[in-house]
Parts: sequence; C-alpha cells; structure tokens
Amino acid sequence: MTWLKSVTHTAMEKAAPSIDLEFAEKLREQFGTPLYILFEEVVAAKSSSWEAINQPVHLSYATKANPTLEVLRWFADRGWSLDVASEGELRAALTAGVSAADCRFHGNAKLQSELEFALGAGIGEIIADNMEELEMIASCVGGQTAMPRLALRVAPGVNPETNAKISTGGAASKFGFSWPEGEVIPAWELATELGLQPSGLHAHIGSQIIDLQASKESAETLGQIAAEVESRFPHALKSVNFGGGLGVANGVPSPKEYMLASLETFPRKDLEFGFEPGRSMVADAGKTLYSVAAIKRRQGKLLVSVDGGLSDNPRPALYGAKYDVEPLRKSAQTESADIFGRHCETDLLFEDIQVPTDLEIGDLLLVHGTGAYNATMASNYNRFPRPAQVFLRSSGEVQLIQRRETYQDMFAREILPR
Amino acid sequence: MTWLKSVTHTAMEKAAPSIDLEFAEKLREQFGTPLYILFEEVVAAKSSSWEAINQPVHLSYATKANPTLEVLRWFADRGWSLDVASEGELRAALTAGVSAADCRFHGNAKLQSELEFALGAGIGEIIADNMEELEMIASCVGGQTAMPRLALRVAPGVNPETNAKISTGGAASKFGFSWPEGEVIPAWELATELGLQPSGLHAHIGSQIIDLQASKESAETLGQIAAEVESRFPHALKSVNFGGGLGVANGVPSPKEYMLASLETFPRKDLEFGFEPGRSMVADAGKTLYSVAAIKRRQGKLLVSVDGGLSDNPRPALYGAKYDVEPLRKSAQTESADIFGRHCETDLLFEDIQVPTDLEIGDLLLVHGTGAYNATMASNYNRFPRPAQVFLRSSGEVQLIQRRETYQDMFAREILPR
Repeated sequence: MTWLKSVTHTAMEKAAPSIDLEFAEKLREQFGTPLYILFEEVVAAKSSSWEAINQPVHLSYATKANPTLEVLRWFADRGWSLDVASEGELRAALTAGVSAADCRFHGNAKLQSELEFALGAGIGEIIADNMEELEMIASCVGGQTAMPRLALRVAPGVNPETNAKISTGGAASKFGFSWPEGEVIPAWELATELGLQPSGLHAHIGSQIIDLQASKESAETLGQIAAEVESRFPHALKSVNFGGGLGVANGVPSPKEYMLASLETFPRKDLEFGFEPGRSMVADAGKTLYSVAAIKRRQGKLLVSVDGGLSDNPRPALYGAKYDVEPLRKSAQTESADIFGRHCETDLLFEDIQVPTDLEIGDLLLVHGTGAYNATMASNYNRFPRPAQVFLRSSGEVQLIQRRETYQDMFAREILPR
Repeated sequence: MTWLKSVTHTAMEKAAPSIDLEFAEKLREQFGTPLYILFEEVVAAKSSSWEAINQPVHLSYATKANPTLEVLRWFADRGWSLDVASEGELRAALTAGVSAADCRFHGNAKLQSELEFALGAGIGEIIADNMEELEMIASCVGGQTAMPRLALRVAPGVNPETNAKISTGGAASKFGFSWPEGEVIPAWELATELGLQPSGLHAHIGSQIIDLQASKESAETLGQIAAEVESRFPHALKSVNFGGGLGVANGVPSPKEYMLASLETFPRKDLEFGFEPGRSMVADAGKTLYSVAAIKRRQGKLLVSVDGGLSDNPRPALYGAKYDVEPLRKSAQTESADIFGRHCETDLLFEDIQVPTDLEIGDLLLVHGTGAYNATMASNYNRFPRPAQVFLRSSGEVQLIQRRETYQDMFAREILPR
C-alpha cells in the first residue's frame, strides 16, 4: 500500500498534506479508527526549516511531544540530539537504538534512581534543575561513571503570553534556578565545588510561544547571567540553550525568526547555541482519522460523535485547544456541527466544524495537527484501547509504528487475588 | 503485611481513614510511588449508605469511575450490577468473572461491533441512546442471540449546576433521546416495531450533582414521559432508572436523600427503580501516595514537586478538581505550599497545602479522594509508567490489584520498521 497517489493538499493551514477518501478507507480497514497518522514529509520540512539558519546551532528534539520509538530514531538519524525528561523517555531513546550520549536529560524533579540510570547509561548532558539535584549527581559520579556535560536550567523571570498551564519561565515557576531570587551563581558555585564542571546555561520559558518579545527578554537576561558567570568563573561557560516552545498556529514566527530573536539579542557570539523544538516539529505532521459513530440534531444544530474522544486527544478539554477537521467525503451542502467523543461526559472535541449536511454514521473525519501531545497523553479512559499510529514515509510506504492496543495489553497489569 | 494497626482517622472530610507514616513507608518499599490505595471499608460504607433505603431499588456500579477488575468483582459479589459503556468495560467485567447478564450497556455512540459483542456475550440490558442504535441492535438480534432488556436513555432537558464538561442531561446534550425535541415516543415506537420490547426509561443528568432540585426536575419530567409512554403502550414500561451523578464534597445530600428526591417526585410507585452511582462509591475510598521529589521557594512560597503528576491525576488540570493533601511526617511548624507534578508543563496539582516547614525530598504525601477517575484516566505522558493500585481489605490484608506498569509493557505496542 502506498499513500503517495492519495495525497491531497488542502487549502488549510500551511498547505499541509491530507489524504483522500479511498486511501483513508484502506487505512481504516487495515488499522481501525481512531488512527494516528504521521506524515514524514511534514516532519522533514519542519526539520529543514529549523536547520535553515546560516550559523551552527545545536538542535535537539523534545521527545515528550511525540516519543514514539520510530520518531525518536528518525530525529537521531537526521543528526539531532534528543531531549528526555524521565527515565522512561531515556529508555525509549535507547530502545529506539539511539546512544545515550546523544540524549540530554531534563526535568524539574529528577529522581536519584533516574540520575543513576542516566549516568550509568552514559547520558550526554544533564540540564540540572535544583541544588539537591546537583548533590544527587555528585553522589552518582565517580569510578566507572563518566561525568556528562552539565548545564544549569535557569528561570529568567520572563512570562510569555501563553496558557498558564504551559508557562514555565516566570518568577514563580517550578523549573530551574531562579535568576530573580539569586540562585544561579550559588548553583554554579556548588556545581563547581562538587567537581561537576558546569559549562552551560539553559532557559525554556514555556510552550506555544508566538511572542518574540518574551524570547528577546529571556535572551537578554541570559546575557546578564552569562556575564556574571564569566566574571566569576572565567572561560567555564561554553554553551547557551534557549529552549523550545515555538507555537503552532497561523502567523507564528518562522523557526529562523524565532532563533534569530534570541541569537541576535544575546550579547556574545563565541559560544555554542542550542534550541529544543518539540511541538512545532510534529504537531502539523500528525492527523487523527475518526469514524462517525452517532449523529443528532439538537436545537437545530448537528451534534456528531466520533469513535474516540478525550482518551486519544485530551487537549481540547485540558487547554481549550482548537483543531481543523476535514470530512473526507465531500459534499456541496455543508453545515456547522459540534464534534464530540464517545466518553461518558460531555467530551466536546471540536466546535463549529463544517460537515456534509447528509453526514452518515461511518463517514470518516480527518483531524489536522494532532501530531504532538496526543499519542503521548492518551489514556484507557472508559477502557478504550489506544489507537495505532502509522508513519507515511516520503517513499510512499505506510509503516505501522505503534500498533493498536489490545484488551490483553490493557488487562496485563490487573490482578484478581485468590 | 496488615494495614489495620496503621490506620488513623483524620479530622478531614467524613473522618475518612488514613495511614500512618510507618505503614506508608512499607507500601513505598514494596510497591513504589506514586501508588493508588483503595480502602475496602470505605467502599463498603458507601455501598451500605446506598443500600440503606427502605424500598427495593436496583443498584448498579458505574464502572468507568474505577474499572479495576477486582473492584468490579467486589461490586458483583455484593449483588450490584455493573454499568459498562464500551466493549472494553464489558470485557473488563467478563475478565473479572462477572456474568454479562449482570451488566448494563450504556454509551452515546455504541459501535455495531460493540453491540454484536455485547449481545453475543448475553448482556443483561442495553440502554439505547439513538435511533440508529435501535436499528443496529435489531440487526444483531435473532437466531442464537437472545434479546436483553431494553431501556431508552432520555435527555429530559434539565441542566444541573455542575461543570459544563460533565453536564449530560441538558437540551443540547449529546446523550439520549431528547424529550424537548419530541424524540422519545418515536423511539419507543421504533423499538417496538423492531421487536425490541422496550421496557425502561433512563436519565442521567450529569456528574458531581449537589443540587436535589435538578434531580427532582428530572424525575418530574420522567414522570411526564412515563405517562405518555403508558398511554401509548399500556403496561410496556417496567422500570425507570434515575442515573447516578451524586457529587463528592462536604455538604452533598446523602444517597438516601438523593434517591428519595427522585423516588418521591416520580408519580408512579409500581415500577422497578434504579440508580447508578460511580464516583460517589469509590472517590473517597481512594488515596494516592506520592514521594516529594523537589522543593523550592519562590517569591516566599514553597513549591513542592512530587514524583507523579497529571499522568496519574489529570483532574486538577481537566476540571479544576480540588483535593485534600496530608503530609505523613507530622510537624508542629507548617506553612502553605503549592504542589506540582514533575511533567514538562506547569502541572499544578494542589494549591495552598499545609506542609511541614522542614519538608524534605523523600517525604510522603497522601492525597485523599482519588479513588475515582484517576487510575482510569492515567496516561504514559512523559513516558511515566502508570502506578500500582493496592486494595486495603477490611480483613487487614494488603492486596495488589493492579501492578505498576513496566517499561516493557509501555514499549509493547511500538514497532521499529526494518
């Protein structure tokens, strides 16, 4: 089965590729719905747009956005390093065949056991978050365990305009060493005393950033921090990472604009610089294919229920996230519908979507932009098996990279005593 | 290991049982944290409070609240029937050894394949939601497949005071046959014509109901519907189910008050009446044990991160749900802290919690009231393995009823092509 002939380019957001009805029906027959679909050509185009900057920057994929093993391998094959933020994310990278040396360990509350595992595996870099973590790292290092690169995550005290749930760089953030509260220099001192040879600074001010002003403010503050570090520890600072967080929406800056905002603001040019995109790499590359499972008319409006819901996409309920939805059977007559999941609560997924007036049970709906924070946040709520994920390779090949969950999988952890 | 000697009764909500530090440390050693803990004595007390009504009512446990197999078996052993709302929930009941005849099949968008499975398994009752579902049921019945009891879910057009995400009985609800839009009598007609012998009416107006007025309005409307059904189809109506949805909070009505509000309002007394509690049966019975993983002070306030987060309890982020949190190491000096998870976003779980001023990494926090919609909605976000669940039996026995997820479990569905 190849998907190449079936591709259509819709008028929607950024001319993202879509699929035609015939191919979608083949996918349903083979893999069932709901189904996550990932387009390699979009991931590749996004990667190229980050790589298209005329200076060396270190690019790292924030794996939490979509940590499917084949996706991790894809980024590693392209030469990107991988951000991991738990033992599980590091194990995912290792299982995908990626070297721990190409992984960078993040997290606001790393466990001692995780640090031991990461150091034992030969992690490439640790981005330390707090004083206790520095002590934990020091207690693990020595003997057989080589010391990885060490950066300090700093909270610069900058609040971007984004959802409070995904703002991470403000003065009251749980993340990192607070610059406004004077923690960064003491942390560098402690790390140095402990023999950890700190060499990097890192800031990530939040997700869904569309506001270059916040990035510039963060880079400006990082410049002040770097100067202070330089004056106290000459030549120790080698790298600065500006994090990720570029938003996904119409009108957001390009990756190049986004990176230049930080790079041009930061006063020094003689360091290694890095960025860590996640969502912006994979969100637009992913689609979810649903089958219509029920249709009602209420107070004159169509209410459509699909065969998934917040178990496969909790983002509308969690963050008020919006998605483009494309009915794959085209019709001249359309009308506005609200699309629901089939969980035992309201489970409103998508509002005011144009669907054919003669929509039927079994019709296929394609939801665009679900490549990030969908598969990774999926649950078994209402005992729904989690969907399969297919990767549409640029070669035309359709690869199953995550199989649909079975009931046997789902009950594997259950124990009936006696 | 017995937990009996370790039980403490806190001054909190309804004198719910807690556990002492020594026992909690044993639990952590054996099962790890985060850990879900379910108290049989509380589930039993809640069951008794529903059973303590001086008239026969049919009680059914809404399994979606906590569908752990041993919990399903527990309710079935006590003589309750089980509400299931998907093939997976029915399979869970069957795997727990419960007869399909004791299960009642709900859902706003049941799939043809699910109906075939349920009918083939001998489901006891189907609560039909829409016209197309009636056709689907009719297409499955016949030959070897006996017809189960059939009820119609109606949307009475009543809006209780609750979170919009869990309000399900209003005029614009996706659930059921709309009474305001005149769908109920045509549905009963169609079901009769199809030979499905409808015999029940069902309404469930939402979750977290603390407002008996809405229950009374729903029962009043059901009374009007029943009269209309009786006049058109004499003696066909045998049962009325008022759903579930009783809230969990201080000051909510007792189960008896809640049931009487419907039973006394409904005009007829000669039918079988039923209720379907879910959350109220298990929420207070469940606790989550976390270890403190990081502590910071920001703008004078303590920020505490635990070793779990929205992957094991998405309800604070989804619904703004509030929980009581008890630090298990007691201290004379306490102060207010915000408690965060360790996911890569804000992940604020619990605000303004009193914790010891000398709180340390590794200290244990017990979160009360997590027995409903936690384990069932858990995800692998950030590749966190899902927690174990232990059942503290009234006998003193500590039973593991859901083992902690392994990384092997987590990667089982992943496929690396070539």
